[in-house]
Amino acid sequence: MRVLHHYQLSASSRFIRLLLAERGLMVLPKIETPWERNEDFLSLNPAGDVPVLVGKDGIAISGATVIAEYIEETEESSLHNLLWGEALARAEIRRLVHWFEYKFHREVGAPLLSERVIKRFSGQGTTSSVVIRAAMSNLQIHLDYIDWLAEQGNWLTGKQISLADLAAAAHLSVLDFLGDIDWSRYSEAKIWYAKMKSRPSFRDLLGDQVVGIKPPEHYGNLDF
Amino acid sequence: MRVLHHYQLSASSRFIRLLLAERGLMVLPKIETPWERNEDFLSLNPAGDVPVLVGKDGIAISGATVIAEYIEETEESSLHNLLWGEALARAEIRRLVHWFEYKFHREVGAPLLSERVIKRFSGQGTTSSVVIRAAMSNLQIHLDYIDWLAEQGNWLTGKQISLADLAAAAHLSVLDFLGDIDWSRYSEAKIWYAKMKSRPSFRDLLGDQVVGIKPPEHYGNLDF
Repeated sequence: MRVLHHYQLSASSRFIRLLLAERGLMVLPKIETPWERNEDFLSLNPAGDVPVLVGKDGIAISGATVIAEYIEETEESSLHNLLWGEALARAEIRRLVHWFEYKFHREVGAPLLSERVIKRFSGQGTTSSVVIRAAMSNLQIHLDYIDWLAEQGNWLTGKQISLADLAAAAHLSVLDFLGDIDWSRYSEAKIWYAKMKSRPSFRDLLGDQVVGIKPPEHYGNLDF
Repeated sequence: MRVLHHYQLSASSRFIRLLLAERGLMVLPKIETPWERNEDFLSLNPAGDVPVLVGKDGIAISGATVIAEYIEETEESSLHNLLWGEALARAEIRRLVHWFEYKFHREVGAPLLSERVIKRFSGQGTTSSVVIRAAMSNLQIHLDYIDWLAEQGNWLTGKQISLADLAAAAHLSVLDFLGDIDWSRYSEAKIWYAKMKSRPSFRDLLGDQVVGIKPPEHYGNLDF
């Protein structure tokens, strides 16, 4: 069986977990703790980060956007493809995936995970309230943008769910786990996120447990 | 004619300039200065960064990896495609493109450009020798990796040139312009880079001029 190396609070890992579940692909999950150096894992992916998907043949595919392109290429299904449409529609899906995987991650997700989780559990560095404040302020701007995107259609890139919805929901779900999102201020984004949460592919994420961190009450509720 | 919004010392822009030249696609270049806010440009790409390719129909495609996927999808040519092969070969090409576009950029390219160019010309912030030292130290590790990759085959992902070579050469070329690379220490990487430099697609990059910065003598020489 294929193995997915991931970390529960890695948004990129969650993106691929959602994709695999949406496509009905079974994998054996293996947790990699980001602040522990693991030589075996580094030999799979010299970049040292999750997710990494290892196929039955032992070949590793590293990085969420690379894995997503690979799954969409090899598991061709006109009904269930999440990177769909003509070249321009696909470019828009990819633009938003990159928005969350790189821009949102850099401006919001990475600093908050580092300050709230990694520094605490690795014991390296002291939490910076300046960094947290800047990331929380960036988060509001991104949520406004998602609110606006959600208002334009059923899904973030139109009438059909796409990789963009999965990437966005994955990145937001980590911050929701950390209790950083006040959904009451973003009504359209909330409706869209409730739709994402109620999909069977999301169930696994809602059940995630991380020692030492308790998500807020609303995290696992489909009615929040 | 298509318009490419770019900046001379943006590595991601250079990656797309190389790709367009390799594929024989003409575009009208338009320079966007990264530290100047331009509302017209922001309406094309809310992320605010280059490159952005605007088609004849006025539709904008933003981000180097998104543009590269779009070009490879729409300009199908079994002879000249740079994202070639079976799904696994394509995954390896994409892995390296992401390596340079995100990992190399974050660890080396972005801090060096910010410290050496953006801070100086925008007048915002003072240069940090700590940041420069850390980025220069990271650069040596990346050059060792490129040296090792170049030793494995003619090109970075095998026997045929791919998007990975273009992305890597684009990112290195900016640092070479800034005089940050001592090629004598990386013989295999140097042979590979000399091959890249001698391609007609590279000519435009070697002629780039930026007011206030003079590249080292060897930058434009094919024999260096």
